[in-house]
Amino acid sequence: MAPSTTVPNGTLPSGSVTGRLASVYSEVQKTRVDHALPLPSVLKHPFTILHGPPSSAAGNPDEIAKLFPHLFGQPSAALARSDAAQTQKKLKIGVVLSGGQAPGGHNVISGIFDYLQERAPGSTLYGFKGGPAGIMKCKYVELTSEYIYPYRNQGGFDMICSGRDKIETPEQFKQAEETAKKLDLDGLVVIGGDDSNTNACLLAENFRSKNLKTSVIGCPKTIDGDLKCKEVPTSFGFDTACKIYSEMIGNVMIDARSTGKYYHFVRLMGRAASHITLECALQTHPNITIIGEEVAAKKLTLKNVTDYIVDVVCKRAEINYNYGVILIPEGLIDFIPEVQHLIAELNEILAHDTVDEGGLWKKKLTDQSLKLFDFLPQAIQEQLMLERDPHGNVQVAKIETEKMLIQMVETELEKRKQEGKYKGEFKGQSHFFGYEGRCGLPTNFDATYCYALGYGAGALLHSGKTGLISSVGNLCAPVKEWTVGGTALTSMMDVERRHGKFKPVIKKAMVELEGAPFKKFASLRDEWALKNCYISPGPIQFSGPGSEVINHTLLLELEAQA
Amino acid sequence: MAPSTTVPNGTLPSGSVTGRLASVYSEVQKTRVDHALPLPSVLKHPFTILHGPPSSAAGNPDEIAKLFPHLFGQPSAALARSDAAQTQKKLKIGVVLSGGQAPGGHNVISGIFDYLQERAPGSTLYGFKGGPAGIMKCKYVELTSEYIYPYRNQGGFDMICSGRDKIETPEQFKQAEETAKKLDLDGLVVIGGDDSNTNACLLAENFRSKNLKTSVIGCPKTIDGDLKCKEVPTSFGFDTACKIYSEMIGNVMIDARSTGKYYHFVRLMGRAASHITLECALQTHPNITIIGEEVAAKKLTLKNVTDYIVDVVCKRAEINYNYGVILIPEGLIDFIPEVQHLIAELNEILAHDTVDEGGLWKKKLTDQSLKLFDFLPQAIQEQLMLERDPHGNVQVAKIETEKMLIQMVETELEKRKQEGKYKGEFKGQSHFFGYEGRCGLPTNFDATYCYALGYGAGALLHSGKTGLISSVGNLCAPVKEWTVGGTALTSMMDVERRHGKFKPVIKKAMVELEGAPFKKFASLRDEWALKNCYISPGPIQFSGPGSEVINHTLLLELEAQA
Repeated sequence: MAPSTTVPNGTLPSGSVTGRLASVYSEVQKTRVDHALPLPSVLKHPFTILHGPPSSAAGNPDEIAKLFPHLFGQPSAALARSDAAQTQKKLKIGVVLSGGQAPGGHNVISGIFDYLQERAPGSTLYGFKGGPAGIMKCKYVELTSEYIYPYRNQGGFDMICSGRDKIETPEQFKQAEETAKKLDLDGLVVIGGDDSNTNACLLAENFRSKNLKTSVIGCPKTIDGDLKCKEVPTSFGFDTACKIYSEMIGNVMIDARSTGKYYHFVRLMGRAASHITLECALQTHPNITIIGEEVAAKKLTLKNVTDYIVDVVCKRAEINYNYGVILIPEGLIDFIPEVQHLIAELNEILAHDTVDEGGLWKKKLTDQSLKLFDFLPQAIQEQLMLERDPHGNVQVAKIETEKMLIQMVETELEKRKQEGKYKGEFKGQSHFFGYEGRCGLPTNFDATYCYALGYGAGALLHSGKTGLISSVGNLCAPVKEWTVGGTALTSMMDVERRHGKFKPVIKKAMVELEGAPFKKFASLRDEWALKNCYISPGPIQFSGPGSEVINHTLLLELEAQA
Repeated sequence: MAPSTTVPNGTLPSGSVTGRLASVYSEVQKTRVDHALPLPSVLKHPFTILHGPPSSAAGNPDEIAKLFPHLFGQPSAALARSDAAQTQKKLKIGVVLSGGQAPGGHNVISGIFDYLQERAPGSTLYGFKGGPAGIMKCKYVELTSEYIYPYRNQGGFDMICSGRDKIETPEQFKQAEETAKKLDLDGLVVIGGDDSNTNACLLAENFRSKNLKTSVIGCPKTIDGDLKCKEVPTSFGFDTACKIYSEMIGNVMIDARSTGKYYHFVRLMGRAASHITLECALQTHPNITIIGEEVAAKKLTLKNVTDYIVDVVCKRAEINYNYGVILIPEGLIDFIPEVQHLIAELNEILAHDTVDEGGLWKKKLTDQSLKLFDFLPQAIQEQLMLERDPHGNVQVAKIETEKMLIQMVETELEKRKQEGKYKGEFKGQSHFFGYEGRCGLPTNFDATYCYALGYGAGALLHSGKTGLISSVGNLCAPVKEWTVGGTALTSMMDVERRHGKFKPVIKKAMVELEGAPFKKFASLRDEWALKNCYISPGPIQFSGPGSEVINHTLLLELEAQA
């Protein structure tokens, strides 16, 4: 592999080599680089596209139809084997990574690249650098075999890096058009979450409306697992991230059982939906798991959640277990209505009033909010009063929910102890598992799934498709039987009213309380609470036993569908 | 495997099954349970013991000789192949786990058990429960093949659990004697760190002085890696723990490079010595690594450490790198003399004076301590003033060093920005990797090493040896060539004067600034600081590539010795 002087996230004096190419790889990284990936059979042969019936929208189809006049109603596309020779037309394709990292992103790019190499030789693949801003600023690198090689099956997004910008204003759409024209792009693959795929669809509509030849295909990325639908069974990265977190949780469980004196409160990434927390629970069987969607559905208060934990702690103490493991989703407090009210009131008060030392300002809170505020531990009260984002809002994301819960549980247990209702000992230990899960080496599942998503995206672009999200299905079957195709992005959309206007959105897929994964969890959690049914999944294996296990969420959802 | 109603850390109503036996094992756990371990050749055949020359002590041999009249000067013992038939005498052996968990403890026990089964059939192995307290209270379980089976090659100490009690007072020694007599023990294996092995030697001396037949053999356990000497090249658990932390650090590095906007401050376990931090640095190549022993040797202040970090951050900003990864040992502030002074002064002031809101109490601090106190971020000042242990002392362990450093670096960077010396952006993210490393599934190295340590301990007891620590050497060679024997615990000891009396101690092995691991690190760190030479070791593999790699510290130390 030839050194390159084009370097993600920084520049060194010319001639020096950095990024992946300067790195010495670990044994495991080296093996993974050369790991050959299986392809679904349908991608190994010439194919034709079969179309489904016209599609609708996830909600408000009339509004979606108005927002996407050129794209609305597109049928889904399924690849099927064909003996007809395919066009050998050379393509110019761009690819962009959008939003937070998820293991497997590099493989989507490798998949697109290999498709082009094998099915449309002489094609060009451009990687836009630093996310959608790279499209707008026409900042790109031409991806070659040598450039891509060291990133194959590796974690991270550092091949071309990502960014959180959106292409939103007419000016920005214009910039994107200019880039598409300048590079003579036949197609663009947008690898991202719900927002980025919505954006991809707007871009596809815009290009189509301007009679640009550039097609746009999305790819479902997010470790949070909240971008999915029947035809897109999972978002990539979820499998790897959950397995990394579960490895750590399993270790902490064995530690808890060995020491016998700590309650470990583990906060897990996932602000909007609790899929990660649910999946990790199914993998490891913790004593207590809080699922945000259930808290919201049952309109639980913070006191309810605390009491639920305290009840279990007390029952466990009666059978001499003064330890345990508790999983909490990062977004927990966003799910609690009373916390939302309190924060809204605080934002209002802090914006307009002075906060006096004596606490007179508190009189401006409603009774319910005041009660909640006083219930909160002092450290959290201070955090709510002091930490502000640039808009003056309370930074909910900065609240360490796991520490807050430990303090609230301590206080409640102390109360019960004084009432003679609790005789145990309680020591809380807090953990946050987040960044370590976003950039791990992708599991065999994510590596293969992403490669198929990318290869399939290449096939869709080659067939002139636009406004679809790459869809690989039948994932419980052997890889050769996986289905490959595309689903109309508009079919996943609904509208939200913002500033008096309808905005299209792909609705986040939340944990369904009637879905198979939650129901399985709910049927077992009481047993997990009192017995210690801990499972330690151990480190992700790339070969041998355990290396082909897929996550429970996907398996249960697919089984329920079958 | 038959269910058992004897359960670690808790009791359930009779008839119910819990602990490992109630657990569903993960694929990886299942495979590991049945993983066959290789034995050094010398343990596969009848053996004889070869003795070295009389030993001395690590320091103050005269005092050690007085403290251990029956044991001082014992030669080391090396197993050698012999064709002479060995005694088939049945043995009664006890085993205890002492102190914090380390991956591999269960395998030491399996090794002892298998030795007895194979070489002294009809023997009995008792597991004392909950650490040394189990010996004193004669709380034990008879370890059978069925009992041990589910714990083979598994992490944790939950087979018999551990504890931090010490056998110290004459009364406690008496209790230990009574247990030894009651169970008619031929031998006892103490699996622990430096303190526990010192304790094991005191117990051996005591049993010998009372003419009890019970021999005592130690085993070197600690993830911290600070119990070692020439004949005991490493303590078990260090390899696994460092690989687990390095997996996480490697992931965070790729995240840092992909996002390009965070400095990750990673605090790693290891209060007394910085071996873990050094090893993780050698495995992953972070931009900045703080080694406590170097800070102490160079008498650095907190300001020096902060400036070192800030200098690197500024230089990186000049080449457009506004991200990086920084490793910090848990015990950092214990290594900084000025912090120790400040804490001593605070303890004194808080014990005798009232702390006034106005801050007049600060006048009681020495100039140097006052300056340091004012330099500390407010949150840390508050922590120092508020958090007290039961003896009224500041709880240094609770100070989140990584967060403290982030705040100090922020403040200093802000200053430099105003002086026009820094133009970058700085965002710190803090991590603590601790509990998740103590109970992971042991690596192939730790699993095999521990099994040999245990098997060897069985052989030493079978030969009537006492006061030795099980020693397995030649670890860079194939397992069959590993050496097995025992080293006089007194030879590792020095004395410390406490309350006017000499106390024997096995000195913690600190990071040697002249040792090969530190020197290698020191020769590379400037390059790592500015270039991004990150390595992502990936998850521990149990088969295939990467599964037989041993840690850098051990490899470099053994190579330097050779």
